[in-house]
Amino acid sequence: MALDGRIEAAMLQAMSLTQSGAAPARLGAALPYAVFPGGARIRPTILMSVALACGDDRPGLTDAAAVALELIHCASLVHDDLPAFDNADVRRGKATVHRAFGEPLAVLAGDSLIVLAFEVLASAGANAPGRALQLVRHLAQRTGMPMGICAGQGWESEAQINLDAYHRAKTGALFIAATQMGALAAGQDAEPWEELGARIGSAFQVADDLKDALMGADEMGKPAGQDAAHGRPSAVAELGISGAVAHLRDILGGAIASIPACPGEAMLAQMVRAYAEKMTPARLTAARG
Amino acid sequence: MALDGRIEAAMLQAMSLTQSGAAPARLGAALPYAVFPGGARIRPTILMSVALACGDDRPGLTDAAAVALELIHCASLVHDDLPAFDNADVRRGKATVHRAFGEPLAVLAGDSLIVLAFEVLASAGANAPGRALQLVRHLAQRTGMPMGICAGQGWESEAQINLDAYHRAKTGALFIAATQMGALAAGQDAEPWEELGARIGSAFQVADDLKDALMGADEMGKPAGQDAAHGRPSAVAELGISGAVAHLRDILGGAIASIPACPGEAMLAQMVRAYAEKMTPARLTAARG
Repeated sequence: MALDGRIEAAMLQAMSLTQSGAAPARLGAALPYAVFPGGARIRPTILMSVALACGDDRPGLTDAAAVALELIHCASLVHDDLPAFDNADVRRGKATVHRAFGEPLAVLAGDSLIVLAFEVLASAGANAPGRALQLVRHLAQRTGMPMGICAGQGWESEAQINLDAYHRAKTGALFIAATQMGALAAGQDAEPWEELGARIGSAFQVADDLKDALMGADEMGKPAGQDAAHGRPSAVAELGISGAVAHLRDILGGAIASIPACPGEAMLAQMVRAYAEKMTPARLTAARG
Repeated sequence: MALDGRIEAAMLQAMSLTQSGAAPARLGAALPYAVFPGGARIRPTILMSVALACGDDRPGLTDAAAVALELIHCASLVHDDLPAFDNADVRRGKATVHRAFGEPLAVLAGDSLIVLAFEVLASAGANAPGRALQLVRHLAQRTGMPMGICAGQGWESEAQINLDAYHRAKTGALFIAATQMGALAAGQDAEPWEELGARIGSAFQVADDLKDALMGADEMGKPAGQDAAHGRPSAVAELGISGAVAHLRDILGGAIASIPACPGEAMLAQMVRAYAEKMTPARLTAARG
C-alpha cells in the first residue's frame, strides 16, 4: 500500500525519541522489538487515508497521530501477550516481548509505548496545539477506561460480559480513533467519522474470529484457536461460520454507506472494499457454503 | 497541609471520567482502589506549591497537572508491586491491586491510570492548549523512555547499572515533573525549575533508602528491607547510615538555594524545610550518632 513508507518513516522517527546513551539498554532494545517489523499497520493506514481524504493540511500532525495510534496498538499487544493474559509465546512470527526480554521489561515496554504515543503528539503539535490536544484527548478516550481498549480487555475479567460494550471497546475503539483522529489531524470534526470507524472495527473483529477458528498457527504468525481454548465470546461461537461471513459482508456494506462527504470519499470507499477483499479470502467464502 | 482538600477534590473529579454504566465493573473498582486513600500526595503538593508561588493564574490547569502527575505515580506503584517486580502483598496498609483484583486487572489498572493522566490534561486544557500540550510533553518525558520512571525501573533489569541515571529516572523524574509542571501550569518557563525538582527527588530517594533500612513493615505500610533483599543499589549500601543522613541534609540545603526568584519564593523555602523535618525524624538523626 502506498502509505507504508510514510508510516514506517514516521514510526522510526518517533522511536528515536526513546533512544539515548544514558538509557537502560535492554528496555531500549525491547521498544523497537515490539514495534518493528510491524503487522499490517491497518490503523495508521486508515487514519492517514481519512486525513488525506480531508485534505491533510498538516501532514506532520497526521504522521504523529498515525504513529501514536499504532504505538498504543503495539503496547496493547505486548501487555495482552503477558502470562497473566494470553500467555503467548509467539507474535508476528517471533518470540513475544516477555519471552525475548522477560516479564518486567515487557510490562515496562508496554508502559513506555503508551507514554511515547502521547509524547509524539505533544512534540508534533507546537504549531497547532488545539488540534494536537484534541488528538491527545481522543486517543486517551479510546485507550483507557471506560470505553477504550483497556476497558475492552477488562471485560474479560468480568463474570458477565456486556458483548456490545466488549467488542466496541476491545476492537472497535482503536478503529474509531483511526477515523476520528484522521479527521481531527486535518482540521475536521471528529463526530461524523465515528460510525465508519466502528463498522471497520466490527468487521475486523468478525474477520479475526473467523481466522482464529479456521486458520492454523503458521498462517496467523501466532497461536490459533485461542477464543475456543479460553472460552472467549466470538462471532463464530454466536453465529456459526457461515453466519459470521454473512455478518461481515453486511457490516462492510454499511461502512461504505457511512463515509461522510469529503474530497476523498471515493478513495475511502475503495479502501474499505480492498479491506473487504482481504478479510474474506477464498477459503472463508467457500466455508460459507 | 492546606492543599490536601484541593488535591483530593481534583483527584475525585478526574476519577469520575473513568466511571460509566457500560464499563467493566471490576476494572472500574480497581482504579479508585489504586488511588484512594492516597499516600502523602507529595508530588501534586509540590506541583501546586510551585504553581501558587508563580501566581496560579489558571487553577483548573494546575489541578489537572497535579492530578495527572499523581495518577502516573499511582500507576507506577501498581505495576512495580506486580509479581514480576517487587511481588508486594501490601501497599499503603492494604492489599496491593494484584492481590485484591488479580494480576490482569492490575496490569490494566496501571495502563488505564497512565492514559487517564493524559486525558485529564487534554480535558482541562481547551482554553490554554499551548500550555496543556507542554504539560503533556513534560509529563510524558518524565514518565517514559529514555529518562522517565519507566527508564528508572528498566535499569533494574540491567547487568550494569548507571547509578546517576538510575536514581534520576526512578525517583527524580516525577519530582522534576512536579516543579516544572507547576511552573508551566502557571505560564512560566520550566527550565529554571529543574534543579529544585531534581534535588527534592534525590532527598526523597535517600530518605526512602534510610526508611527501608531502618523501619519495620508496620511503620511503612509496606514490606521493609526490600533493597537489601533484592540486592538493589541504595544510599545506605553506598554511604552507610550516618553518611546517608549527612548527604540528605546537604541535598536539602542545595534545594532551598536553587529556588528560582518568584513571588512565592519564601513559601517554597518553608515547604522544603518542612519536608526536611519530616524526612529526618528523631530516630534517623539519632542514628547519625
